[in-house]
Amino acid sequence: MNDLIKELRELTGAGILEIKQALSENDNDKEKAIEHLRKKGALKAGKKSDRVANEGIVEAYIHPGGRVGVLIEVNCETDFVARTDDFKTLVKDLAIHIAAANPLYINSSDIPPEVVEKEKEIYKEQVKGKPDDVVNKILEGKISKYYEEACLMEQPFAKNPDIKVRDLVSGAVAKMGENVVVKRFSRFVLGN
Amino acid sequence: MNDLIKELRELTGAGILEIKQALSENDNDKEKAIEHLRKKGALKAGKKSDRVANEGIVEAYIHPGGRVGVLIEVNCETDFVARTDDFKTLVKDLAIHIAAANPLYINSSDIPPEVVEKEKEIYKEQVKGKPDDVVNKILEGKISKYYEEACLMEQPFAKNPDIKVRDLVSGAVAKMGENVVVKRFSRFVLGN
Repeated sequence: MNDLIKELRELTGAGILEIKQALSENDNDKEKAIEHLRKKGALKAGKKSDRVANEGIVEAYIHPGGRVGVLIEVNCETDFVARTDDFKTLVKDLAIHIAAANPLYINSSDIPPEVVEKEKEIYKEQVKGKPDDVVNKILEGKISKYYEEACLMEQPFAKNPDIKVRDLVSGAVAKMGENVVVKRFSRFVLGN
Repeated sequence: MNDLIKELRELTGAGILEIKQALSENDNDKEKAIEHLRKKGALKAGKKSDRVANEGIVEAYIHPGGRVGVLIEVNCETDFVARTDDFKTLVKDLAIHIAAANPLYINSSDIPPEVVEKEKEIYKEQVKGKPDDVVNKILEGKISKYYEEACLMEQPFAKNPDIKVRDLVSGAVAKMGENVVVKRFSRFVLGN
């Protein structure tokens, strides 16, 4: 039982009491409890997302061999949180993830509209001749797939593909009690 | 005598025989010998600067405290040189220098023409009313000063302000016998 609580804490960043409650409310069904806690966590994270995050750290990850490197800035609200091991681990994990998963943007809202339009054009070409509602359904699916490939927050987290990077950050917000924002990153590949 | 040779070797990357020759040709005057070796080194580096540099490493430097970080890619011609301690030290030194000296461009040729024009306008305003030849002289000096502030290659090297970063790189080219190119860098300051 303790292992399960620990696991859910790692995955969602929720408090122990919340986890126990979520488990009992969901007949100890792990997946349902996670779903429940994520929704609560996202809600809390959403409430904190307006708060000013000016502190944080700049961190780097160089992949062994020195052919891929990432520089990242992640913000939180206080220097106190920025110095915690939890925050440092989160930032390091994000840098390693970016090295592996090569996101082009942080959020889907960062994609320039003309890029989305161009993607849509390509997909439309691929599904030409099908009825409109089918086309729209397929387009929707393809765009959401494109977001998952191109946007850091929508990507499956490299270390644990069961969650999105967004969930990792929401979990950190819940655990640390502060707004946490990935501000920017640079990713260099040798010779590219 | 050996210390002097070693120092000149560090500063210019020239061979020991060349250094002995430069000293004897310049009556053991250290400054003149350096000047002499630099010119020869720059000549050699110039000859190598057309050669393709596709290898190298991506490296990072995070200043203690995590508020400033630099990601840099430096190219050389072979993986063999990229793996040497000399090359790694050069790249690390460049990353630390960039963290400290905040260059905006790598070479003066990377500055967009409109930026140079704008700088010139500001300087012209400052020296209005003076004769044309005086104005041109002052403008030249101010622009070269601007290059020294804004361009990595023209900046005095942070660890040894007696030389420019350009000299550090030329010295490395001479020592390693390969073209060495600073390809790109990113510099993040927390909250900027």
